[in-house]
Amino acid sequence: MKRILAFVDDIYEDLELLYPKIRLEEESWEVVVAGPEKGRTYRGKNGYPCVADAAIAEMTCAEFDALLIPGGFAPDKLRRDPKVLSLTREFNEQRKPIAFICHAGWICISADILRGKTATSTVGIRDDMRNAGAEWIDEALVVDGHLISSRTPKDLAVFARALVDKLRG
Amino acid sequence: MKRILAFVDDIYEDLELLYPKIRLEEESWEVVVAGPEKGRTYRGKNGYPCVADAAIAEMTCAEFDALLIPGGFAPDKLRRDPKVLSLTREFNEQRKPIAFICHAGWICISADILRGKTATSTVGIRDDMRNAGAEWIDEALVVDGHLISSRTPKDLAVFARALVDKLRG
Repeated sequence: MKRILAFVDDIYEDLELLYPKIRLEEESWEVVVAGPEKGRTYRGKNGYPCVADAAIAEMTCAEFDALLIPGGFAPDKLRRDPKVLSLTREFNEQRKPIAFICHAGWICISADILRGKTATSTVGIRDDMRNAGAEWIDEALVVDGHLISSRTPKDLAVFARALVDKLRG
Repeated sequence: MKRILAFVDDIYEDLELLYPKIRLEEESWEVVVAGPEKGRTYRGKNGYPCVADAAIAEMTCAEFDALLIPGGFAPDKLRRDPKVLSLTREFNEQRKPIAFICHAGWICISADILRGKTATSTVGIRDDMRNAGAEWIDEALVVDGHLISSRTPKDLAVFARALVDKLRG
């Protein structure tokens, strides 16, 4: 039994949150979707609604086995929250899997966990990723230790499978 | 290598099409999404776009190993197309897996493939399902031979897994 923390906020990329969420649930694992407010409904970039199970402010790394960060424009808002960044740093320090896709790299940049690491993202933030010290490569899936990254929703099958495989150990 | 045919039209339930689609692609299988027009972008009930790979009129059962029918209100339109119904009947006659969820049962009703079969759907069309001769039960997943059915997006993890398992054989 694994527990995975996922971040949500408005304009999250619908499938980048919901595909891995359901895929992890297929493994009979628990996914806790945390947003700025518990119980609030957030709208995806394309309109799909997602109710936050929990408030980010109340989350602790110790309760979870991995962190999932979907893209869209939610990361632009979430990276301003010091609690989002401290949680991300804790998962990183404890070498728990962090799976981030598309624009989610912005949160990893602001948490400053990419120096010397190989990663990918949407090409839109490639320069931000490199300026933050990442070795950026254009591949559907990049796994560097506990850091799992992909580019866009087209990569979701390999992205989610990599997180499942990492958690299976 | 398996090939799966999926139907799309406007107001399809976004995740009911896209979760199983990506899940099947995770198995390295090919999913062909067919709509009324090849290349047209259809919008999900919640707004997620999906481009049709192919036109329903050009599809033949012989090319595929299974049929996936998502819900939403797309089935209300698709059931009016005789080609949708003849394809559905062919998959049924050849006992190829047909996975249908939520309002997708409407297509199975109009194809008249539910008599004496156990199945589920959204509670909204329960009466239609029973009037078409189905033994309707309220469960997340119902598998009766090659017919796989579920109720709502909340059931997607077990629904998609059942189709994967059936195709793995």
